[in-house]
Amino acid sequence: MYAEVKASGGGVCAPRGFKAAAAACGLKASGDLDLCILAADARCAAAATFTTNAFHAAPVALTREHIEEDGFLQAVVVNSGNANAWTGERGMLDARDMASLAAGSMGIDNRDVAVASTGVIGRYLDMDKVAGGIAEAAAKMHAEGGSDAAAAIMTTDTVPKEIALECGGFTVGGMAKGAGMIKPDMATMLAFITTDAEVDHAGFGRALRSAVDRTFNRITIDGCTSTNDMVLAMASGASGVKAEAEELEDALHKACSHLARAIVEDGEGATKFIAVRMHEACSEVEAKHAAVTVAESALVKTAFFGGDPNWGRVVQAVGQAVKDADPGKMRVKICGITVAEAGEVSEVDMEKLAEAMTGKALDLDVFLGRGDASVEVWTCDFSYDYVKINAEYHT
Amino acid sequence: MYAEVKASGGGVCAPRGFKAAAAACGLKASGDLDLCILAADARCAAAATFTTNAFHAAPVALTREHIEEDGFLQAVVVNSGNANAWTGERGMLDARDMASLAAGSMGIDNRDVAVASTGVIGRYLDMDKVAGGIAEAAAKMHAEGGSDAAAAIMTTDTVPKEIALECGGFTVGGMAKGAGMIKPDMATMLAFITTDAEVDHAGFGRALRSAVDRTFNRITIDGCTSTNDMVLAMASGASGVKAEAEELEDALHKACSHLARAIVEDGEGATKFIAVRMHEACSEVEAKHAAVTVAESALVKTAFFGGDPNWGRVVQAVGQAVKDADPGKMRVKICGITVAEAGEVSEVDMEKLAEAMTGKALDLDVFLGRGDASVEVWTCDFSYDYVKINAEYHT
Repeated sequence: MYAEVKASGGGVCAPRGFKAAAAACGLKASGDLDLCILAADARCAAAATFTTNAFHAAPVALTREHIEEDGFLQAVVVNSGNANAWTGERGMLDARDMASLAAGSMGIDNRDVAVASTGVIGRYLDMDKVAGGIAEAAAKMHAEGGSDAAAAIMTTDTVPKEIALECGGFTVGGMAKGAGMIKPDMATMLAFITTDAEVDHAGFGRALRSAVDRTFNRITIDGCTSTNDMVLAMASGASGVKAEAEELEDALHKACSHLARAIVEDGEGATKFIAVRMHEACSEVEAKHAAVTVAESALVKTAFFGGDPNWGRVVQAVGQAVKDADPGKMRVKICGITVAEAGEVSEVDMEKLAEAMTGKALDLDVFLGRGDASVEVWTCDFSYDYVKINAEYHT
Repeated sequence: MYAEVKASGGGVCAPRGFKAAAAACGLKASGDLDLCILAADARCAAAATFTTNAFHAAPVALTREHIEEDGFLQAVVVNSGNANAWTGERGMLDARDMASLAAGSMGIDNRDVAVASTGVIGRYLDMDKVAGGIAEAAAKMHAEGGSDAAAAIMTTDTVPKEIALECGGFTVGGMAKGAGMIKPDMATMLAFITTDAEVDHAGFGRALRSAVDRTFNRITIDGCTSTNDMVLAMASGASGVKAEAEELEDALHKACSHLARAIVEDGEGATKFIAVRMHEACSEVEAKHAAVTVAESALVKTAFFGGDPNWGRVVQAVGQAVKDADPGKMRVKICGITVAEAGEVSEVDMEKLAEAMTGKALDLDVFLGRGDASVEVWTCDFSYDYVKINAEYHT
């Protein structure tokens, strides 16, 4: 139907017409990269989804305003190390200044610049540092800057998260950050998607929302919806290739899926990736609610960390989520092995199961026997290191 | 208005007309006490609340049936080490056999015997062991058996949980177990309350539900609603004193409050007790939802474990729970010290705050500025030991 999609390098700068650069301006005490600019050669059709948290941060409000104005953006400036959230009017002024400084340094309109921040909540930005970082990054923008940008947006991430896909005539690139405060309810982290396809503007927005719904909105690490999350996509059209709606949606879905999975694999303290699939639910809403309840259960997550097939905790979570579920119609599989069926104790080859659970990517399938809706949610296990990272993450 | 309530000893056997005994019948590999019987000299007016989990265990179904029959009970037999949950028809037969064996050994009607179980889900009871334990316990029932009974119902609890209150002319006793799989949604653990007051039967049920709503239903350790939970109350009338509705409700509330707090203090891996108070909400439902979202946030709980006043995580959780909350009207206090106000960064004496957070019992107060409803929820912090206990709890 449409060209095969192939992975390649280059991240957000893989599509034609984009460049990026990063700086270490001192927002992170570690001295690591903590600010980046991603910019296109010309104005891009833009689309975005934002956090549903009532206390969305200043950059979320500003970016929404800049996108809603005319639907176009040319650049985004991102800092890590400080979320610029719960910072009131001063935070809003700081976000505006970030956009203006980036716009000024590149000679573009400040309303065409998006802003994103991630890090500690409730602290004002040091704008001297930010201004220095913006000037430094703007001075060295280049078409191989994608990886530096991906590194600059990291917080408790242990690895940068990038993707580039060749989709026949056009290319899609992406980068994301996120390891904690991750819960599906839009969007649970920062992600930036670029493409050089020519797009139908409205269709671009629909394709992004659809991709986000099936990827970033189906991951959970700790059940906490952040104040700062956004997924932002920009289409430069520089390939001169008009993307069909279906192939664009497919490409965005693949890019978002890759980045969402990378976030869960890099979840704070995670040692295992767990795909929770809820089958035979009455509706997709029911399936997702049940899958998320299982995926967020501290008891399930610690059992998987321990390599313990404690499926009683799985049925407990399902029974908590679906108040009229019928145990007689249910079935639970761990790593493809049936562990519970029809409300009765099953004969299980525990040795085989324990062996299967030593893997790094595990499957948990629950069949509710109520309908034909199904949803897959991704989560990770819950380890000592999750506690270590979050008890010692300094405010 | 009514007599002062004073704490005393004796637990569930403190009220006149009750006796108890425990046995170690081998359900726990440790050889610790794992079965007990609590019985009255005559039939008692009974009241109970049960788990809302769809997959309630066999003993929950049986006890509900026995109470609903005529509202009276004379005894309860409880085992730990096995939840008799997700055990289908055989589990139901085993629960019936437990009631019959206990009834037969005491010469009472099996429909006057309640059954409760707690432990691993999804394993059939070893009824030979259970029968031995029931015979042993029944043979040595005595009026000082309360503490043995409280020990026999423990699972991952580190201390038994008992209370006895002298309420003027009558006495209320209680015991409870619970340390994990604790989430308010009825009832999140096992608790047994006794009294020698003469009670109005319907009023007794109302008083119990009211007490449970304000105590056991306002605690959370890990957000997981168990399959086996019940709070069961029996009134022997042996004091000959008729309890007024208000003083009975007050006494039950005090007893339940003590036991609920004891459960949270003994939460799996807990090092700190945290009272989360949500003030100025539009409704009690909103206040409780917001308080529980904060109390169950893994990020908040790990921050408290680390002694870190990371209040950004508190506002994140509130903003997740109350989608139209106004940061400009909000205020957050940790240990009585204002840390966030009106959506702006506050000046905080961090040294004083860090010092206050070294305590064992901490207060977290959130003022939403939306109305006049408030709710207090109790939780504990989230430590390395929570992970250790739950990654190594063997299925």
